[in-house]
Amino acid sequence: MTGLRVVLVSPRNPLNIGAAARAISNFGFSDLALVNPYEVSFRDAVSAVGAGAVMQAAQVFPTVADAVAGCSMVVGTTAGDHRELAVPLRRLETAAPLLREHTGGGVAILFGSEKYGLSNDDISHCQWLLRIPSRPEHGSMNLGQAVAVCLYELIRSDSPASEHPEPAPPPAASSEQIEALLSRMEEVLQIAGYYDHSATGGSERRLRQLLNRMNPTKQDATVWLGIFRQILWKLRQHS
Amino acid sequence: MTGLRVVLVSPRNPLNIGAAARAISNFGFSDLALVNPYEVSFRDAVSAVGAGAVMQAAQVFPTVADAVAGCSMVVGTTAGDHRELAVPLRRLETAAPLLREHTGGGVAILFGSEKYGLSNDDISHCQWLLRIPSRPEHGSMNLGQAVAVCLYELIRSDSPASEHPEPAPPPAASSEQIEALLSRMEEVLQIAGYYDHSATGGSERRLRQLLNRMNPTKQDATVWLGIFRQILWKLRQHS
Repeated sequence: MTGLRVVLVSPRNPLNIGAAARAISNFGFSDLALVNPYEVSFRDAVSAVGAGAVMQAAQVFPTVADAVAGCSMVVGTTAGDHRELAVPLRRLETAAPLLREHTGGGVAILFGSEKYGLSNDDISHCQWLLRIPSRPEHGSMNLGQAVAVCLYELIRSDSPASEHPEPAPPPAASSEQIEALLSRMEEVLQIAGYYDHSATGGSERRLRQLLNRMNPTKQDATVWLGIFRQILWKLRQHS
Repeated sequence: MTGLRVVLVSPRNPLNIGAAARAISNFGFSDLALVNPYEVSFRDAVSAVGAGAVMQAAQVFPTVADAVAGCSMVVGTTAGDHRELAVPLRRLETAAPLLREHTGGGVAILFGSEKYGLSNDDISHCQWLLRIPSRPEHGSMNLGQAVAVCLYELIRSDSPASEHPEPAPPPAASSEQIEALLSRMEEVLQIAGYYDHSATGGSERRLRQLLNRMNPTKQDATVWLGIFRQILWKLRQHS
């Protein structure tokens, strides 16, 4: 299965990076991305049994935005419920069919650091969150094990012969489109005086979440971009 | 789920023992048995995050026969096919229902050492073998990851109405909210010159479809309304 990228955000332990690479290879995937890994020399430090090809091809990115660029579906993993963020949360079993449907447009699954998981900023890049159904009293899984379980669920199959596939949903907007829309909106809202003076990074995060919750199609994102471009043009006539 | 024992046969790496213990705890199991572990002092060497109870209760046995005594179903895990042994081999997906059925009588799942897997002698204690559906070209999984994937399959559930219900989605915006938002947007777009002179009713319909495809929550619809109110206020300052 191509079109699926495993993104490890700020992983601390090279053994876990190697374990993730091994699971990627075991289950027939290939695309590993690392955001800001703790050990710069991780590639040398890691010997992942049988997963040398995945490790050598792994890409390192400075930010989550860079790591998910070009993916039309971005999903975070969490052991909690993050109810306060109002981001939809799905159990792995129900998440997997959705992910499989969208691999054509590029799917990224984000895994947070061993100690802290994904930050709220990381999550703001996600359209929804995924939870492995671990015991609530001890939900936090080892990073390599969490990756293995998620990928297993994606390739597992109840029936040897698959049924008739459902028609594909319209392609979702890419993260570049979302970011382009986000920056137009911010310019508009800045000029329109929407922001308090106190709110800065937090408001960008909230806007991004708002856009990602919309989960717009490629076509709708283009319409929205046109709307905000036009508003911006009009506002600039007078400023 | 009780009645299931994870048996690690001759594990070499204390980190893998810890990882197995952690997965056992994550997925609500408790019974870990070790046959002839390589490091006698493994219990001190292992710090498995959150799995202290499982580690402390882990039992060490000199032989496989001792470790599976009292279990009515004994199953081995393998990355190969072991056709020469004529032991039935089942994929994990089809193995899991059988295992769940038999936990009342005690089920043991055997995992071999990191390097060699289960020996033919070990397998002679098994009624059948289980295979995680990894890629044939790279079937051999990390021990801790293999344990995690097997236990996950045992507790996974296709039905949403299981013990851990998903939290209800946030309430969707009412049609009144959508209409209010729609009319603010239209005022904004009118002033901003977004519409051709030819397009009238058609564009309102397209906007409404756009908003409905977003399927915004009540809260998000309020944010959008605030955004367009503010833009409208700004645009009117100059018109």
